[in-house]
Amino acid sequence: MAKEFIEKLVKEMTIEEKLAQMTQLSPDFFDTDESVDLTGPAKEMNIDTDCIKNVGSTLNAFGAEKLIKMQEKYLKENPHKIPLIFMADVIHGYKTIFPIPLAMGCSFNPDACKKAAEVAAKESSAAGIHLTFAPMADLVRDPRWGRVMESPGEDPYLNSLMTAAAVKGFQGEDLKENGKIAACVKHFAGYGAPEGGRDYNTVDISTGMLYEFYLPAYKAAVDVGVKMVMTSFNILDRIPSTANKKLVREILREKWGFDGVVISDFNSVGETLIHGVSENGEEAAAKCIEAGVDIEMMSTCYINFAKKLIEEGKLPMELVDEAVTRILELKDELGLFENPYKDANPEKEKELLLCKEHREAARDVAAQSIVLLKNDGVLPLKKGLKVGIAGPFATSRNVLGGWAGKDIENVVSLYEGISSKIPGTMIKTAMTSELGAMQEGIFDVEDRVDEACEQLADCDVIIAAVGESPSDVGEGASKAYLRLSPNQEKMIFELKKLGKPVIVVVFSGRPMEIKPVLGHADALVQAWFLGTESGNAIADVLFGDYNPSGRLSMSFPQTVGQIPVYYNCYGTGRPSDGTLQRYVSRYLDCPNEPLFCFGYGLSYSNFVYSGFKVEKDGEKIIASVSIENNSDIPGKETVQLYIRDVASSVVRPLKELKGFQQIWLEGGESKTVSFEITKDMLKFWNYDLEYVFEPGEFDIMIGRNSEDVMVERIKI
Amino acid sequence: MAKEFIEKLVKEMTIEEKLAQMTQLSPDFFDTDESVDLTGPAKEMNIDTDCIKNVGSTLNAFGAEKLIKMQEKYLKENPHKIPLIFMADVIHGYKTIFPIPLAMGCSFNPDACKKAAEVAAKESSAAGIHLTFAPMADLVRDPRWGRVMESPGEDPYLNSLMTAAAVKGFQGEDLKENGKIAACVKHFAGYGAPEGGRDYNTVDISTGMLYEFYLPAYKAAVDVGVKMVMTSFNILDRIPSTANKKLVREILREKWGFDGVVISDFNSVGETLIHGVSENGEEAAAKCIEAGVDIEMMSTCYINFAKKLIEEGKLPMELVDEAVTRILELKDELGLFENPYKDANPEKEKELLLCKEHREAARDVAAQSIVLLKNDGVLPLKKGLKVGIAGPFATSRNVLGGWAGKDIENVVSLYEGISSKIPGTMIKTAMTSELGAMQEGIFDVEDRVDEACEQLADCDVIIAAVGESPSDVGEGASKAYLRLSPNQEKMIFELKKLGKPVIVVVFSGRPMEIKPVLGHADALVQAWFLGTESGNAIADVLFGDYNPSGRLSMSFPQTVGQIPVYYNCYGTGRPSDGTLQRYVSRYLDCPNEPLFCFGYGLSYSNFVYSGFKVEKDGEKIIASVSIENNSDIPGKETVQLYIRDVASSVVRPLKELKGFQQIWLEGGESKTVSFEITKDMLKFWNYDLEYVFEPGEFDIMIGRNSEDVMVERIKI
Repeated sequence: MAKEFIEKLVKEMTIEEKLAQMTQLSPDFFDTDESVDLTGPAKEMNIDTDCIKNVGSTLNAFGAEKLIKMQEKYLKENPHKIPLIFMADVIHGYKTIFPIPLAMGCSFNPDACKKAAEVAAKESSAAGIHLTFAPMADLVRDPRWGRVMESPGEDPYLNSLMTAAAVKGFQGEDLKENGKIAACVKHFAGYGAPEGGRDYNTVDISTGMLYEFYLPAYKAAVDVGVKMVMTSFNILDRIPSTANKKLVREILREKWGFDGVVISDFNSVGETLIHGVSENGEEAAAKCIEAGVDIEMMSTCYINFAKKLIEEGKLPMELVDEAVTRILELKDELGLFENPYKDANPEKEKELLLCKEHREAARDVAAQSIVLLKNDGVLPLKKGLKVGIAGPFATSRNVLGGWAGKDIENVVSLYEGISSKIPGTMIKTAMTSELGAMQEGIFDVEDRVDEACEQLADCDVIIAAVGESPSDVGEGASKAYLRLSPNQEKMIFELKKLGKPVIVVVFSGRPMEIKPVLGHADALVQAWFLGTESGNAIADVLFGDYNPSGRLSMSFPQTVGQIPVYYNCYGTGRPSDGTLQRYVSRYLDCPNEPLFCFGYGLSYSNFVYSGFKVEKDGEKIIASVSIENNSDIPGKETVQLYIRDVASSVVRPLKELKGFQQIWLEGGESKTVSFEITKDMLKFWNYDLEYVFEPGEFDIMIGRNSEDVMVERIKI
Repeated sequence: MAKEFIEKLVKEMTIEEKLAQMTQLSPDFFDTDESVDLTGPAKEMNIDTDCIKNVGSTLNAFGAEKLIKMQEKYLKENPHKIPLIFMADVIHGYKTIFPIPLAMGCSFNPDACKKAAEVAAKESSAAGIHLTFAPMADLVRDPRWGRVMESPGEDPYLNSLMTAAAVKGFQGEDLKENGKIAACVKHFAGYGAPEGGRDYNTVDISTGMLYEFYLPAYKAAVDVGVKMVMTSFNILDRIPSTANKKLVREILREKWGFDGVVISDFNSVGETLIHGVSENGEEAAAKCIEAGVDIEMMSTCYINFAKKLIEEGKLPMELVDEAVTRILELKDELGLFENPYKDANPEKEKELLLCKEHREAARDVAAQSIVLLKNDGVLPLKKGLKVGIAGPFATSRNVLGGWAGKDIENVVSLYEGISSKIPGTMIKTAMTSELGAMQEGIFDVEDRVDEACEQLADCDVIIAAVGESPSDVGEGASKAYLRLSPNQEKMIFELKKLGKPVIVVVFSGRPMEIKPVLGHADALVQAWFLGTESGNAIADVLFGDYNPSGRLSMSFPQTVGQIPVYYNCYGTGRPSDGTLQRYVSRYLDCPNEPLFCFGYGLSYSNFVYSGFKVEKDGEKIIASVSIENNSDIPGKETVQLYIRDVASSVVRPLKELKGFQQIWLEGGESKTVSFEITKDMLKFWNYDLEYVFEPGEFDIMIGRNSEDVMVERIKI
């Protein structure tokens, strides 16, 4: 479409039509056959049918048939024939569910993340969706927060790669193409740092911390052309993000040059009143439009109050016109003016959803997301053994995690995954009752530990399938306690007493406090919530059909009282050397280090690092290391590059991931891995928030995880 | 002394002499009869005997006789006859030890805090001390931090009052007077907010948070004329406080007009190298002198490198002259040029230390600091009962807390305190072995629970004297776990099974996680570390000779996973109403509220609040309430005023303490308490960090603690 077309359209629209275009309402406002029931939610929101005819977008309506019908009806009524845009939470898959994003972060493989987004885009696009509220780029350091499941992890560099990959996967090269949908990076900004890990709670971080850690992954999305940005629920500098002009207009639009659409989070314009920075809806509308938020999601301050503001000269009409223009441009980029249904197609939908190719991709990404945290040699399992599977996740298909719908009938349970490897006669199960959800006021599985021990006494090896309820992760699912439930811990302790190897498989949406059971486990597999192919992927790893390659993208705490614990912390003036010295920065009763650090993960192969060196090659600085697979088992190793700026004008992190490479090594094979150390890797945000390189000394580190590294100090 | 005298002195001093004046070294550099051993620490610090003759101050040398001798020797050698200034950590008493500052914060009585400082000044001044590194004004929200013991608590207003009172108590009207010493407020700034509660760890707070919560108490000290300010170990905006020009020169000196001396913390100039913001000692000296730090404590960057900086024109001589002038002015204000020994006097020292008057004051303040957290009617104890005292603090005199020396022979133990109330034949003790210190790698008392139950089976009432080792609180004593040790918890559970009332008395330097034992206690007394008169004060409360009046100045968490929890938090957009609603700011497994809130504390009296109103009296707004002592027991009630700014330009705390009054009510007596609501109470730091009043609605709240309040909304 020509730019002129949109300009003309904006000129023709009334203020009311524009403000409705800037409003997003749930599908119940649109999908009745008759006009909307004004005694219901519409009345509460104080809007009329004329308004609804012009509302620009809706969220979380699903299914090609339904959406085609909604669009048809809407276009009949919309005076300018501007199509409705269908947005939705397609977070880690539409029907073919991939691992939760935190698990995909552990793949350390942006291509895996991209693949998941491509499949999700294909399925949801056929189902009529135009835009997904994903990826979530929020950096996380607090596993109490339920929404860590939706983040790639604790590292700005890894998060940036994963976020950019997801955006590319969803959007492709051309949004008009079939199977492509627009992406919306969220939650801008700092939503991942709620105080106490309590969702929606106050965020208080310094501006330097914001720039250095929290902003990069959002910016990475903007840099690869993400079409939409969602503001967050939290405050920054005591101003809710949604009303934060400095954040949205200055940083996002002016500094980063973002020219796409900014949307509020659910009711977050309205919530500026509850936050206490808006006295009334009028002030809320003024502040959020001035801040640069184009679409108000599920509250109606814009539609109800902005007209008055404009008429009284309190709000420039230009701001509204700019917002509407951006929204219409997005619709145009999606091709909706030519084809308002895009590739919504009931037949194609049926064909694509959960198709073989998609499930295979999901299985592959799931396997890559599993992290082997402990293995005393019991894994991989030999196929002739009698296997006992105990615990709430032994047979459960409820392993999709949050934001994945409730259709679990297509999920492969752990039992089913193992059944496809060995005969059913070689498998026994015990204590399989579903884990209660705290959300529903239940806290544990039934204590049938004695019975379980009896039932599995003759097994050769026991798998304890434990974790937390999928209902207890995600939005609004923060926890103050992170241990497994008492009956699950007890089950592991007692099963271990049978004298058989016990493999603990943890299903969770966050790093849990697994230290109490670790000593009772011969192996521990972090299996997250892996989606549709969960059981197959875990079985692939357990039986060695997939050699585990996942690496933690978020530190596992020793205990909840150690939080926050993350690898890229700033240096202190009194670092601990690990001894019992008193006047250094340490706890009396807990190490400073996490139980398992960022980048940690085991393989069935044995990778040996040697010959680390940092050399000048002309102008270039090259760090290299030789890695040998000192085993018979072929496998994938993730070689990690960390850098520390030894002295600079501000305190810097002790380590920062600046690169990694995944290499495949056959048994006995060796490879040399090289990284060029670029000046860009050494830049940082200085005190005045300029992105600078300061010459000096740098520690170049290469290793298998963030703790186990070799170091060379160089001067540049 | 005339100003000219100091000016002249500064003109006569060489650069080296000036830099030595700006250096503080430990007493071992001064107190040898011969010149200092240059193979020892002096050599490590790269300083010579000439330097030591000019070093301006020393720290933590004690005793009149010793200090007189040190001064004599020093003055013989110092070329300008500038006396040495003796500084020391006199935190909550010199020999007569008062409660730890957190406990004194709970007195809600600035006069108590002032009295403690007066007694400490009298004793330490007679012992030759000129200046104390107290009070610590650091606001605290994280009980994992061991140094919460040294803070008044979590509230900027209360902390300001307590800090100012302590300064006044130490300094009096005229520093030259006998019995007065200079005060040093610390640690500027934000030292109380280390990440994860780990001492010396990174501090990351927004500037608004710094202004609103953390700065006020330091400023209160400056406003009442504190003579010295100590910088903190932590960073702010990624710059260590000690090298932080914005903090020290701009905020403290320029904005607040502080013209006293700024001192580093122990080696914190040197630690800018470890922090990585100084490449070498030269840069450290330049940064810290430029920042405005006059005295370098226990590192020698100034003396070793600043001369070169000046000679090379990299550091203005004026900055050094200013610093030296301030140091000499402080010595002058103390009268040291006329009388370098001030009131150091071995006879007076002997007479004053632990004198009857001081001990009585300590007992009174200790009683006021105790907080009764639970009482099912068992307290106060009748004197005819047979009392069993069990647990590590039953007979221990090791209850001084940190910063109080190791002379515990004068301490009154709980057993001794109770013995002075009832005959020894009516008291039995059990399981009294000293609690191990984590610091020393021991974690628990010996499990002699069965024996204890047997021994105390015939008692009428049982006191469980439990807590944490005093070695495990204070500097360098952070903890990730906050529960009582397993054997102590077990002891309480089992003693309760005897069917007798169990009174739990908790000795700790921080809020501990006492929820697991609370249900097993008929009464719970938070007894902190109360100092010399500990046992007497607790016995006074237990037997009703003192009706408990302490109120928590720091919230007690439900569990460590709920931290930080504090009353004056910002409003969110999704507050919880306490129901199980999902999409609000709450934990699935823990309430948002602390176990015991700020301002909480019980009395043996029953105070009934009624008739709350907010009225205009001419221009004035008056909030008033009537309080009746609906019991026979006379007592002290702390009536608390909280205010909330309903809507403003930035998000504000949900409640802020703005006033309190302690009233005494005889049995059956009623009194009306009034507060004038002044505009000053309604001011806050806006987004641009201006201190402003914004008209609008305010909630005026009066109540017995921060949760149990009555509310009236007014518009101003």
